[in-house]
Amino acid sequence: MMRVVAFGGGHGLSASLRALRTSGVDLDITAVVTVADDGGSSGRLRAERSALPPGDLRQALAALAAERDDTQRTAALFQHRFVPDGRDHSPLDGHTVGNLVLVGLMEQLGDPVSALDHAARMVDAGGRVLPMAVKAVGIEADVRGADPRRPETLLTVVGQHAVAVAPGHVEAVRLTPADPPACPEAVAAVEAADWLIFGPGSWYTSVIPHLLVPELARAIVASPARRLVTLNLAAEPETWGLSAADHLAALRWYLPELKVDTVLADGAAVGDPEPVRRAAESLGARLVLAPVAVADGSPKHDPGALGAALVPVLGASR
Amino acid sequence: MMRVVAFGGGHGLSASLRALRTSGVDLDITAVVTVADDGGSSGRLRAERSALPPGDLRQALAALAAERDDTQRTAALFQHRFVPDGRDHSPLDGHTVGNLVLVGLMEQLGDPVSALDHAARMVDAGGRVLPMAVKAVGIEADVRGADPRRPETLLTVVGQHAVAVAPGHVEAVRLTPADPPACPEAVAAVEAADWLIFGPGSWYTSVIPHLLVPELARAIVASPARRLVTLNLAAEPETWGLSAADHLAALRWYLPELKVDTVLADGAAVGDPEPVRRAAESLGARLVLAPVAVADGSPKHDPGALGAALVPVLGASR
Repeated sequence: MMRVVAFGGGHGLSASLRALRTSGVDLDITAVVTVADDGGSSGRLRAERSALPPGDLRQALAALAAERDDTQRTAALFQHRFVPDGRDHSPLDGHTVGNLVLVGLMEQLGDPVSALDHAARMVDAGGRVLPMAVKAVGIEADVRGADPRRPETLLTVVGQHAVAVAPGHVEAVRLTPADPPACPEAVAAVEAADWLIFGPGSWYTSVIPHLLVPELARAIVASPARRLVTLNLAAEPETWGLSAADHLAALRWYLPELKVDTVLADGAAVGDPEPVRRAAESLGARLVLAPVAVADGSPKHDPGALGAALVPVLGASR
Repeated sequence: MMRVVAFGGGHGLSASLRALRTSGVDLDITAVVTVADDGGSSGRLRAERSALPPGDLRQALAALAAERDDTQRTAALFQHRFVPDGRDHSPLDGHTVGNLVLVGLMEQLGDPVSALDHAARMVDAGGRVLPMAVKAVGIEADVRGADPRRPETLLTVVGQHAVAVAPGHVEAVRLTPADPPACPEAVAAVEAADWLIFGPGSWYTSVIPHLLVPELARAIVASPARRLVTLNLAAEPETWGLSAADHLAALRWYLPELKVDTVLADGAAVGDPEPVRRAAESLGARLVLAPVAVADGSPKHDPGALGAALVPVLGASR
């Protein structure tokens, strides 16, 4: 069995996990998830209660849920979001059941890893879900043009959600505190892994944050595992103006010691592959192009197609 | 396997279900639960969202959870109540995770029975939990002396919680609406049962309400099952001044056709058994006395002792 650790945050990590789970390869999957979310339900729960922001953790659990009717029903329950039902606004509006379950488990068990392991059992997850750090962290970024009226001014944007939606160009991203305590189980999974997989996902707010947790970054660099970067299909507000090659350069900027074995990209999304190939080579990686987008043309990874593309990558000899 | 239907509401029904589940008798257990709660978390959820009040349903599920570590942990999660954690007051305060899970399942699946059946699978419940009606109902009561300054005045007290805590003497209790739609699966369980078990529990707000749902009352009267009444160990505010015999007379008052086979009471709680024996006989029942209270002297049923007392009752030949 091949031990795979996938890093990320929300939707991108879910696509990666669904791809891995359904790839047909016998994998021991660990998801390592950012804990910087401060928007929506997670942001409210984080502010109101002493818990890790649960949203991205919940999405990873749902992606790993076993395909049986009962576990898929529990996964759908976790994803069920309370919305106004025509009566007055309710304090539950916007929360998902799974976020409340995770906060409840963390309070009950006093330990996020035990909570996540139990939630994983509730959906018979085909893998483990761990936080990148055992305390919630903040993200802030220096963004040039965050105020569109002053496009040349560098402003500090505070909060994962604000960074993710800010216009302008991210010149630097940081965690607050800068040295959060890594999750020991995540560090151990990295040390024991055969493959480490970065992306897809929001580059500055879901992928790079893992490289900014010092203990986790050291483990990533030191691990005997091979390393795969799965590139996004399109830029997001936080990465507008960045090419695919720029995404790879950003990884190197934040973790200069990072070596990568394979970069997986969608040929149609990349266009001219040469700059990407050169950027990959500067990380030590070969570039693999494969059609991994959903068929309707929207910039989302199709888990089946991504899984099919991953099989030869993961199985390749060194 | 003997098919048992236990009627009740909160703590009393839980004690009954734990007793049945651990009795060692091979039982097919169905809990039929009141849906009139309008206090606390259930009351808020009922007011804010279009759901059955979940609290009593949740307690029944927790009582039926399998004894394995994982299912007991999920049951404890269901029972976990959010309390202020030292920060500001949170909108979740007072809710249990299980209440939110049940409301989420009812919204997701659109049907309370499917929701309860799935929640039962989540704890591998040793029985089925059903609502007495598929819509939330109200309880109101005419209470003499509800206002202690006017002890002779009859006032109408509205709401299960208000009735349960009102001082004075309940002279009449009603459901609103008076003809709520019974849960068809509960009616079917009554029709197929070998035993119907009423109580222990809050007499006017958790036990008698079942007799006030017309379809359910007709099924209870028509069922070939034998009928057991488990008496409370002490009066509560809503039944202050009522003797054990008065409790039995109240059942007959609200459902005159009700025949009972066995009345189970704690000898120490009952005191002189003769009035209870006569009240039981007027319902067609024999009185069984057994020590069923917890050892510390508080008026709570001990599930183990209650289960031990139930074994010969349920196994008795007609």
